[in-house]
Amino acid sequence: MSSPPNKLNVHALRWQDRQLSVLDQRLLPEQVHYDIFNTAPEVAEAIKTMRVRGAPAIGIAAAYAVALSVQQHFTLDNTAWQQRVYADMEILAASRPTAVNLFWALAVMRETLAVVSDSPVNAMIHKAVEIHQQDIAANQKMGEMGADILGDAQGLLTHCNAGALATGGYGTALGVIRSAQQRQKRAVYAGETRPWLQGARLTVWELAADNIPATLIADSAAAMLMQSGKIDWIIVGADRIAANGDVANKIGTYSLAVLAKHHGVKVMVVAPVSTIDFTMDNGSQIEIEQRAASEFLPDCYVQEDGLINAWNPVFDVTPAELISVIVTECGVVFNPFEQGVRELRNEYSI
Amino acid sequence: MSSPPNKLNVHALRWQDRQLSVLDQRLLPEQVHYDIFNTAPEVAEAIKTMRVRGAPAIGIAAAYAVALSVQQHFTLDNTAWQQRVYADMEILAASRPTAVNLFWALAVMRETLAVVSDSPVNAMIHKAVEIHQQDIAANQKMGEMGADILGDAQGLLTHCNAGALATGGYGTALGVIRSAQQRQKRAVYAGETRPWLQGARLTVWELAADNIPATLIADSAAAMLMQSGKIDWIIVGADRIAANGDVANKIGTYSLAVLAKHHGVKVMVVAPVSTIDFTMDNGSQIEIEQRAASEFLPDCYVQEDGLINAWNPVFDVTPAELISVIVTECGVVFNPFEQGVRELRNEYSI
Repeated sequence: MSSPPNKLNVHALRWQDRQLSVLDQRLLPEQVHYDIFNTAPEVAEAIKTMRVRGAPAIGIAAAYAVALSVQQHFTLDNTAWQQRVYADMEILAASRPTAVNLFWALAVMRETLAVVSDSPVNAMIHKAVEIHQQDIAANQKMGEMGADILGDAQGLLTHCNAGALATGGYGTALGVIRSAQQRQKRAVYAGETRPWLQGARLTVWELAADNIPATLIADSAAAMLMQSGKIDWIIVGADRIAANGDVANKIGTYSLAVLAKHHGVKVMVVAPVSTIDFTMDNGSQIEIEQRAASEFLPDCYVQEDGLINAWNPVFDVTPAELISVIVTECGVVFNPFEQGVRELRNEYSI
Repeated sequence: MSSPPNKLNVHALRWQDRQLSVLDQRLLPEQVHYDIFNTAPEVAEAIKTMRVRGAPAIGIAAAYAVALSVQQHFTLDNTAWQQRVYADMEILAASRPTAVNLFWALAVMRETLAVVSDSPVNAMIHKAVEIHQQDIAANQKMGEMGADILGDAQGLLTHCNAGALATGGYGTALGVIRSAQQRQKRAVYAGETRPWLQGARLTVWELAADNIPATLIADSAAAMLMQSGKIDWIIVGADRIAANGDVANKIGTYSLAVLAKHHGVKVMVVAPVSTIDFTMDNGSQIEIEQRAASEFLPDCYVQEDGLINAWNPVFDVTPAELISVIVTECGVVFNPFEQGVRELRNEYSI
């Protein structure tokens, strides 16, 4: 069994010959290099070091990692192997804190593991491939629904990379941009997204691979671009959505949402229902990952006496009231409100 | 005659032995290297390539460059040398378009040249040193006035580098931060300022040299920082101020001003009166320099078919209504309005 086709040249993750190939996104756009992993701790390390990133892709990678763990540890003799799989799940859970899809995928795999009987290896691989497959289908559905909402809107600005590289394939925010672009020509802008430059390294690379023209901007030029009237919609993914519609996403998303409000620009968040954390009433409860200062502090200060430091939150939280619409594969919620978000859950099953 | 002392370890420009030493700011913070120039076209090239940058420093460099030109071309025989000096002024005027201080300094030097009689070389050098000297004095005055306005405010965020490196010495926005920090401890934040990273490379370097602790942030993290309540004032310099108080400054300034409004944070613009362009009614008339896409577009797209491009405006314009106060050496204007800005001119002479 291998991972599902996604009709694109871009694959963040590939399951083949009972191994997981992970595209090292840190090397893009200069180099397309896949690492091949056979164990869960290797995959956890790949998530931690951002070889693979993007909330849905992290979840799918974790699902495959659990399948790898079962494949490695399963024996017919006894059930002690399950303890090793649970230990691997702990390692995976500790890899990155903010994206809820990781914990969602682990929960799905844990439930599956609890009910499998005769051939757990195949069953777990099957479940991981199914998660992957459903993510691609969800992206394609969201792409069409999002494009319906955009209508004839011309100017689209995205942030970070919520594309095929961040998902099972096709993408969330970039899925909408792909679907919209298929219908008619748009002006697509991408923020470079400091400090990791996902916009510059991943988003425009992915768009170019799909033959979609795009214009890269410095993050701080977005306000001037909106001031000039060239942007109709901000379209972003999400790492975790609270039950009231507050959205945690890449640092800078909140900034864009405030700027959008000032300029009368609309904000669309595109994410599968697995991104919604129904246990969190609002965004203030979402843990925001802080990464090392060295990610953008010049080297000469990193080893110093601490006179110069850096503050490096990876995500921010955009309050629901700054969001025009949340698009999921189970439906859309305009002007997100708690009841509307909670109802998506009823439409949802995997 | 040599350039005035500025009581700091940081000098962007030094006039010594009838030559101009220019700190190559592109090499900071790793390397402190001065180039020595003897001709105006060399200085124009240093401005164009951003070895020296910052509106006031560009003006001072241009003034010294005109002195160098007179020194190179002056002969007792005839007045034809003046044509060569005027030609050099043209080259200097074409180096960068947005900072008005460049054109102001050239105008002052042209007026001086028109009235000198017996020893033009010394007279022109004397005028350039005087411009430099008055800029430092202006910065120190603005520093104290700005600090008065800040009072006990704790959280200060600056953008780009409006420090000693951007001026004759002491700095405009960083001059206020220096003066404020001398009175009591503050929390100083600096935006890294893409694409050239003046905040990361210059501002925190300069603050560290002065023993002022600072925290670097990605530009797009400013909104979240304001959301957290940690910022009281945004303090920035200016490249050109229109007569109504609209301010052209480093790209991202407008973004910060909109975000500041949303969060109830105040915005202080600090600039000498030479930055005010009284001929421009409002900011829409200010020419905004566009620099090469290659400054932040990954190399693999620069030589391509144009599918992927970058939009790289160097400055943006912040409307006067988003600015709390403009601080100049001739006085301050709260909630900038045209009459208030124009009155600064009456207080001003060089």
